[in-house]
Amino acid sequence: MTLPVFDAAAIERAVTSRLVLDTVRAALIAHAEGRTSVPPPLHLDFPEADGDCHVKAGRIAGAADFTVKIATGFYGNPARGLPANHGLVCVISARTGAPRALLDDRGLLTAWRTAAAGALITHAMARPAAGTLAVFGTGEQARLQALWLAGLRPLGPVLVHGRTPDKARALCEALAAHGLAARPAAAAEAARADMIITATPAASPVLDAAMVRPGAHVTGIGTDMPHKNELPPALFHRARLIATDDHAQCLDHGDFGHAVRAGSAAEDADIAAGLLLKAPVDRPDTAITVADLTGVGALDAALASAVLRRLRE
Amino acid sequence: MTLPVFDAAAIERAVTSRLVLDTVRAALIAHAEGRTSVPPPLHLDFPEADGDCHVKAGRIAGAADFTVKIATGFYGNPARGLPANHGLVCVISARTGAPRALLDDRGLLTAWRTAAAGALITHAMARPAAGTLAVFGTGEQARLQALWLAGLRPLGPVLVHGRTPDKARALCEALAAHGLAARPAAAAEAARADMIITATPAASPVLDAAMVRPGAHVTGIGTDMPHKNELPPALFHRARLIATDDHAQCLDHGDFGHAVRAGSAAEDADIAAGLLLKAPVDRPDTAITVADLTGVGALDAALASAVLRRLRE
Repeated sequence: MTLPVFDAAAIERAVTSRLVLDTVRAALIAHAEGRTSVPPPLHLDFPEADGDCHVKAGRIAGAADFTVKIATGFYGNPARGLPANHGLVCVISARTGAPRALLDDRGLLTAWRTAAAGALITHAMARPAAGTLAVFGTGEQARLQALWLAGLRPLGPVLVHGRTPDKARALCEALAAHGLAARPAAAAEAARADMIITATPAASPVLDAAMVRPGAHVTGIGTDMPHKNELPPALFHRARLIATDDHAQCLDHGDFGHAVRAGSAAEDADIAAGLLLKAPVDRPDTAITVADLTGVGALDAALASAVLRRLRE
Repeated sequence: MTLPVFDAAAIERAVTSRLVLDTVRAALIAHAEGRTSVPPPLHLDFPEADGDCHVKAGRIAGAADFTVKIATGFYGNPARGLPANHGLVCVISARTGAPRALLDDRGLLTAWRTAAAGALITHAMARPAAGTLAVFGTGEQARLQALWLAGLRPLGPVLVHGRTPDKARALCEALAAHGLAARPAAAAEAARADMIITATPAASPVLDAAMVRPGAHVTGIGTDMPHKNELPPALFHRARLIATDDHAQCLDHGDFGHAVRAGSAAEDADIAAGLLLKAPVDRPDTAITVADLTGVGALDAALASAVLRRLRE
């Protein structure tokens, strides 16, 4: 029997945001409770082509499948009219080791699980009455974070802050097409929103901690490598509650790690994000809360497995 | 466009032993000359299913493609009528990062490149007049090593040594079907052959070093993990020439490493196997020579790329 391959179009047709949110919630909880296993990733560099390849594996204890995810980024591609990123997820039986299917998803599942994790955590940690959202960044994740959060709670105006005005305007139009009121905003205005999500590749903080208002919640999505840093250490110092999706990973290469190394947060100041999804979060209305999400490989396993089940139904 | 998947039958139809030997020879030379890159593999354990998963990547400098190879071993499968091993090779463009094809080869390419490497090195290091071959082990690799070496030089009788007499007899019959004279032999007799290839999962040496005759060549194939050990340290002490397919790897988890740790060989006593394929090997007729092969990821990349080219022709 030939191994079945499902392409991005088939995956998009089969999957609902409900499936993604439910799966990611359960996987984040499993990860927080130590029921996942995620070995160190494999990494290959292609300096002559400005490219890299990361291979990540993940599994959830007791699950029927595990996954191996291959992701490449070749940053000279766009200049040649090609996408910079490619992705491929191999779903393998955890009972027999036999490959079950390939999801030629071009990074779609990674984008969705990242968006779902950000939306779930932001919704869980923000004040129930919080309405205004600011997104820092104008890329695909900035768009998805706003849309998926809008699926979880009513949003007031969405403020979009980006370095390139054209891109900020384009994102506002894309959000408007989904019924969200959105407009470009300066960093100072965006920093005063009820909820702030940063989804940039920034190498130095995009947010002025002093401008963040009491009662605000901030989720950082973009810091997934040691040289990146979106959220300032001073924000962690002000925060009453700090959530990380993976303690060791956020300490190693997340915004939380930058804050700890700067002396602005204790190494054990964080709580596992998944635990905050189990029950309403106890947070005073005037507290600042922060979530640092670096991406958890076990989410890939859970989502790919759920998507494959749906594709086969 | 859907990612093309080629199964084992298509690969077997397209590939010749000549293609495999030429590709593996060139890749071993490239590896010896430092023109390959092989990051540390990714590893996942499934203790409850007696299984494991290894993911290896490899590339050859300047090549158009690289590969990510996923291999699983679930050792309870045979009792349920399933194969223990599964394999899948993803061929990816080293120029754009785009996946080009999947080779659902069930481990075939790994078996072939291992057999080709063993045959090439054994042929290069053995005396030109060496004729008798002994294989220790009765599995698929023992069979392939004998057959592929027979394609490179005329063989006298093949002596097969295995712990299970029935399996040794079955391998002799399989070799006879390919025109090779083969018979089961005790370890003491097998150890006195001109050429010895060990292809077992042994955790302690299968060969008595004192019985190996001057002028013999020994190639060890099976020691690919720290707890395995086929060749005795004393054999390395007697050897005039020691080849390793990857110095660091053989030192870490090959028979060569056992010999170095036992004080029977100096840490720098070995030469890169690939270098011995470039010109006739200078070896006295009375010398003992040894090759320790632990498997090189870059061979996977080279072979998968060559096979894909042939499949597309």
